[in-house]
Amino acid sequence: MSNISISTLVQSKNVIIQDEFWSPYISLIRDVVVPYQWEALNDRIEGNEPSHAIQNFRIAAGLEQGDFYGMVFQDSDVAKWLEAVGYLLEQMPDPDLEKVADEVVDLIAKAQHADGYVNTYFTLKETAGRWTNLAECHELYCAGHLIEAAVAYEKATGKSKILDVACKLADCIDATFGPEDGKIKGYDGHQEVELALMKLYRATSNDRYMKLAKFFLDERGQSPHFYDLEFDRRNGETHFQALKIAKDKSYSQAHIPIRMQQTAEGHAVRVVYMCTGMADVAAATGDEELLKACRALWHNIVNKRMYITGSIGSMSYGESFTLDYDLPNDTAYAETCASIGLIFFAQRMLQIEPRSEYADVMERALYNTVIGGMSRDGQHFFYVNPLEAWPDASGKNRNFDHVKMERQRWFGCACCPPNIARLLASLGSYIYSFHGHALYAHLYIGSQVMVEVDGSTVRLTQHSELPWNGNIRFELMMDGPKVFSLALRIPSWCESWNVRVNGQPVVESDMRLFNGYLHLEREWNAGDIVDLLLPMNVSPMKGNPEIRETVGMVAIQRGPMVYCLEEADNGRGLHKLIIRPGFEDQVSFDESLLGGLLTIDLTAYRIQDEGWKDRLYRMNAEDHLEATTARFIPYFAWANRGSGEMRVWIRENTVLPS
Amino acid sequence: MSNISISTLVQSKNVIIQDEFWSPYISLIRDVVVPYQWEALNDRIEGNEPSHAIQNFRIAAGLEQGDFYGMVFQDSDVAKWLEAVGYLLEQMPDPDLEKVADEVVDLIAKAQHADGYVNTYFTLKETAGRWTNLAECHELYCAGHLIEAAVAYEKATGKSKILDVACKLADCIDATFGPEDGKIKGYDGHQEVELALMKLYRATSNDRYMKLAKFFLDERGQSPHFYDLEFDRRNGETHFQALKIAKDKSYSQAHIPIRMQQTAEGHAVRVVYMCTGMADVAAATGDEELLKACRALWHNIVNKRMYITGSIGSMSYGESFTLDYDLPNDTAYAETCASIGLIFFAQRMLQIEPRSEYADVMERALYNTVIGGMSRDGQHFFYVNPLEAWPDASGKNRNFDHVKMERQRWFGCACCPPNIARLLASLGSYIYSFHGHALYAHLYIGSQVMVEVDGSTVRLTQHSELPWNGNIRFELMMDGPKVFSLALRIPSWCESWNVRVNGQPVVESDMRLFNGYLHLEREWNAGDIVDLLLPMNVSPMKGNPEIRETVGMVAIQRGPMVYCLEEADNGRGLHKLIIRPGFEDQVSFDESLLGGLLTIDLTAYRIQDEGWKDRLYRMNAEDHLEATTARFIPYFAWANRGSGEMRVWIRENTVLPS
Repeated sequence: MSNISISTLVQSKNVIIQDEFWSPYISLIRDVVVPYQWEALNDRIEGNEPSHAIQNFRIAAGLEQGDFYGMVFQDSDVAKWLEAVGYLLEQMPDPDLEKVADEVVDLIAKAQHADGYVNTYFTLKETAGRWTNLAECHELYCAGHLIEAAVAYEKATGKSKILDVACKLADCIDATFGPEDGKIKGYDGHQEVELALMKLYRATSNDRYMKLAKFFLDERGQSPHFYDLEFDRRNGETHFQALKIAKDKSYSQAHIPIRMQQTAEGHAVRVVYMCTGMADVAAATGDEELLKACRALWHNIVNKRMYITGSIGSMSYGESFTLDYDLPNDTAYAETCASIGLIFFAQRMLQIEPRSEYADVMERALYNTVIGGMSRDGQHFFYVNPLEAWPDASGKNRNFDHVKMERQRWFGCACCPPNIARLLASLGSYIYSFHGHALYAHLYIGSQVMVEVDGSTVRLTQHSELPWNGNIRFELMMDGPKVFSLALRIPSWCESWNVRVNGQPVVESDMRLFNGYLHLEREWNAGDIVDLLLPMNVSPMKGNPEIRETVGMVAIQRGPMVYCLEEADNGRGLHKLIIRPGFEDQVSFDESLLGGLLTIDLTAYRIQDEGWKDRLYRMNAEDHLEATTARFIPYFAWANRGSGEMRVWIRENTVLPS
Repeated sequence: MSNISISTLVQSKNVIIQDEFWSPYISLIRDVVVPYQWEALNDRIEGNEPSHAIQNFRIAAGLEQGDFYGMVFQDSDVAKWLEAVGYLLEQMPDPDLEKVADEVVDLIAKAQHADGYVNTYFTLKETAGRWTNLAECHELYCAGHLIEAAVAYEKATGKSKILDVACKLADCIDATFGPEDGKIKGYDGHQEVELALMKLYRATSNDRYMKLAKFFLDERGQSPHFYDLEFDRRNGETHFQALKIAKDKSYSQAHIPIRMQQTAEGHAVRVVYMCTGMADVAAATGDEELLKACRALWHNIVNKRMYITGSIGSMSYGESFTLDYDLPNDTAYAETCASIGLIFFAQRMLQIEPRSEYADVMERALYNTVIGGMSRDGQHFFYVNPLEAWPDASGKNRNFDHVKMERQRWFGCACCPPNIARLLASLGSYIYSFHGHALYAHLYIGSQVMVEVDGSTVRLTQHSELPWNGNIRFELMMDGPKVFSLALRIPSWCESWNVRVNGQPVVESDMRLFNGYLHLEREWNAGDIVDLLLPMNVSPMKGNPEIRETVGMVAIQRGPMVYCLEEADNGRGLHKLIIRPGFEDQVSFDESLLGGLLTIDLTAYRIQDEGWKDRLYRMNAEDHLEATTARFIPYFAWANRGSGEMRVWIRENTVLPS
């Protein structure tokens, strides 16, 4: 018997976000990003690379003539948009938006084949190629996104049409793949259908979907290798020449069976999508071995291969992980989507075992990379999120070709913008969970949540001053007294905390710190107020000494926010700045800066160029240092003031033994 | 009228090297490298990538049937080998070697077309392609190497056959290219023929060759652009797809006319070969404007874009320069051939204006990158010479794909090994020059030199304890008293010096320091002895603060040698070492280490991993430091003890104002 117990999901529709920092983001998604992306999907934005994604569906649906255009996974952009719309409609009705979305649903339904198959690329372009190149062609990946969209949209609107399409598609896949004779024993190069099938399973309770997800996961990396078999069957034809995807098995995490994988290898987004599906299956089936594999990969990612901004993927080639402690700041890939996938993975692990390390990483990725991936106007996006930028080198040192100095409007491969949209539109589902008889607060985001405790409703209102201050208040509303535990995460960024219930300090015996959560277990009454104070200090963060790129340096963090230096505040040559351990800091909130940002000023020194004119190297040269102030702004807000240098890590003088 | 006066060349046959450090290298070239390369050129070395270079000539000569194999510039390997043989024979007769070389000469002569054209690729493979793709196909480059070989071999043996071949080839080129109507107004993508034609001009006094060299140089980068014209003529066919050579004009330094070029752009070897030819033409024609362009490019290379090891080319893509102060240590390209070309350039500039900065760079490149490019056994070579190596990342972080952790036997593109051979075989010609009435000693290498002063011979014997000690002695032999200046370079690596003539200090009025040379002008007598002492200290070198990759670090240099840390001496994690300004050092000579090396031990500290297990980032963490000793060996000797970490730059604590 398994010991895995999973938390009750707190449905996003039961969470309403009311937060000074996050509400504007969600409005931005509703008012700007989703409409903007709709225009982009319809190729109505001048100067953008064409998307053609809606047009592909129209042609596949027989409504128009024409050819497929775009990436093999172009369909997924439409699905991610529809999924985001689902989350938005769940929170707030919007008949106009729903009408547009219903039309998209109709379109997808029309593009569906009689046997349930949906994929415009293989419907229009490679008509004989269906299921011949799983390694490269994202067929199941696209199916997965469609399924995710369907589950979200049906839940929001109660309209079953798209869920029916999804079930028909999943049934088609189930009829094609599986261990039974005559079925394909294969799996997609890009994991996604696994976690989607688990959503469909939860939405429909049809356990064929869960079994199919498990099949895909367990088939991965088995011998004889499916990618070799299908490669030979299609006489070595490949879709993406450069990457050798079919042969470089670790690119798709297919080098060994997933239960044996101890390190995160290959394409970063695929790793975390896979892990999300693994955790889903482990939770649903009580599969301890699978959970162990999840923990091993989690451990390797967050303790060996993650940037301090919660981003992952050190290398542009293959958008990939490389090796432990290889975390270059300037050539980082650090894809926005990979951090989003890491949040999915963290959320699933939190549901299985509420340990604050999962929520800490979720918070780190969310407050830094994810929102850093979008401009403050919601119309420009980073795919790659470096921790150091040197605009002068752009176009000159080709190792930086993938790094953009300013956010771009829409991408030819446009995975990140709609991924940000669907994550932020569903942010409510990442804040709370209910496990055992404890209501967990994982993130401190102002919100109202309703949960069922012993058959009646408890309404919890959270007020939070994050990310700028650590004052949080919870108010409880319920019909009558109720015994349960309120479990409040103590984030890794605070070294102490203070808690009061109804203004009174809580006695030691009434609380318990367990796995990073402060459990307040008691009989709660309507109107009870809990005040949590998490002191927020300017903290110099050090990297593990094994990391070559951070040794001798510190990154400045305050609360969940990682800070950075920008040329706009500090001039050029940010690498010339050095700080002293035990620096003095001054924190101030600048209302006028990019919609309001907290800035941090540190006493620092700057190496002077004096004596260096026209010389590269000098013997016994002493550094000339000038006292200065280094101004830091939150990392997520970088590159909103034109192209300029940026860096997260600043040199710190080492205290040598005397 | 031009003010350019150039030095009398001190012919390499008039210089005999007798030096504890360098003589073994020259023996190695004679006894191992040249014979080994002969075997390689004939594909008789098992496990090597095939060369086929001799075979190509045999087929082109009609002696065998078969197809061309290899790079489009494969012929140049044979030429570089023959050139090295010429230098060796000039110093010491070797009838067996000469017989083999004569056969190669016969072979080349047989492969020459009636009109003088020689090139096995276009003779055998692309028979209709002659002169259709100058941008990419190295036709004139190969011709240049053949001409260089011919000049060297004729000078050594007095046999005119190969020089006749070369002149016929040069005449063929002269009939094809030039400003006259009906001739091609083009130039090779890879500069080389320019400097070669200048050698041929000096050997034959035929000024058509000089004019042709000048034509090629001045035509470069003019509009309408020749590479566009020939690209269109061949309907856009390209030879090397990836690099877009024909369109990326700066790759071949053809983006603007050469006299306007202020920065070193594109392929590093091409830049310095071009500059060598430019300096040759400037010297021969007194072209001040051209000399100014040489100085501008020299200045940009050595003061903005050169590694401390005298290597150049920061980027693998295009084997190229990038931008000022972009000098990454780990992804450096730093090709051996580029440093050899830099030495050529320096030598030409020294002949025009004896300034020690040229000889300083020549010495830096020679003692570090060039000999570092070859293993101590003479059979293994580096093409790429990084300043930091991390073997664990090999094959995992693909940005290091070009960096090898151990020297390789022979390369598919085998430019570097024969280039080292020809440079070291002609090392004698880099030590001295005679300018005005001054005999200059540019390098301190034990040797005898004979020069003509006012019609009679002066014989100078140099004894040198470099690179390990700075004691140098000169002995003069001549028929009678002679007034001239002995100009001794004061290297950039010593801050003081001491000189004695016949044991007596030289009075101030008898010497003059000018442009980095100490001029001793007097009446010299037979038997006069000059002792020069150049104190050699362990010097911490700093990089210009603009260099991101060296800020906060020092490199250890002693005399001409740059030192490095290796894993073999210091364990793994070399980046964890830090030194204090004003360290204590201990220098010792280890006879048994790789044929005898001076090692340097510094007091240092190492960051400990204590408290870091399974954590990537920590708040307010103090470094745990352990006192240790950091052992340095000369950079050139790295990677002779198996694969391991290496780094040149070590972290140094900054002294902050109190």
